[in-house]
Amino acid sequence: MAYDSNNIFAKILRGEAPCVRVYEDEHTLVFMDLMPQADGHLLVIPKEPAETLLDVSEEGAQACIRVTRRMAIAVKKALGVEGIHIAQLNGVAAGQTVPHCHFHVIPHEKGVVLRMHAAEPVAREELEAMAERIRAYL
Amino acid sequence: MAYDSNNIFAKILRGEAPCVRVYEDEHTLVFMDLMPQADGHLLVIPKEPAETLLDVSEEGAQACIRVTRRMAIAVKKALGVEGIHIAQLNGVAAGQTVPHCHFHVIPHEKGVVLRMHAAEPVAREELEAMAERIRAYL
Repeated sequence: MAYDSNNIFAKILRGEAPCVRVYEDEHTLVFMDLMPQADGHLLVIPKEPAETLLDVSEEGAQACIRVTRRMAIAVKKALGVEGIHIAQLNGVAAGQTVPHCHFHVIPHEKGVVLRMHAAEPVAREELEAMAERIRAYL
Repeated sequence: MAYDSNNIFAKILRGEAPCVRVYEDEHTLVFMDLMPQADGHLLVIPKEPAETLLDVSEEGAQACIRVTRRMAIAVKKALGVEGIHIAQLNGVAAGQTVPHCHFHVIPHEKGVVLRMHAAEPVAREELEAMAERIRAYL
């Protein structure tokens, strides 16, 4: 499918929509998920316009996992959680809600059931506070 | 935590336990999940001894996502599915069942509920047939 440059992550990348930024480099952007499945849930996206992991370049995929790994380490330290769930959904059939490739980094404590995907928004101040805690460990 | 070299994936890497192999290169091994959450569910693991994505080297993580991406493309073509779910669980708290870093590549059709993780074994012949279908698209 052709890339839809009006998707919300494309707008965030162009600075046309806000995000609570955690990290950025030449190839990737990291920001807090607005409707987190757990506190500290963040998203890693490639800057390259690609709908799924299957469409992104090999270099883009590598940049994403490099940054995803670093974020997982930082989130674990910042929040003191024991588990980190990485999810990367490709296609509406698999539950992908925004048509720009993204990696979910979700803190997961034992016995805690993750909240529904893309269900409940969290206040921006809360997300900002969480982003600051995570950035301290980058 | 120290790496447990007696885990089942370590044994598979040493050739001490069997697996239905799909692909192998210098840094990674890919084989069918014995208790798939959907038909065609496979696992990508680094050869490096690392318990989680947080412990694996940056190079190991990059090799894994490079191969995971290629497998996702092949599985999608081989099975004609619309969605591909990539899951990578770190820590028992997050549902990790084998203490060697691994990436799940799970075909996901719209409306189909994935089977439980690590619940129901599938006959080796069925897995072999599936691996052959996928290998044809590598």
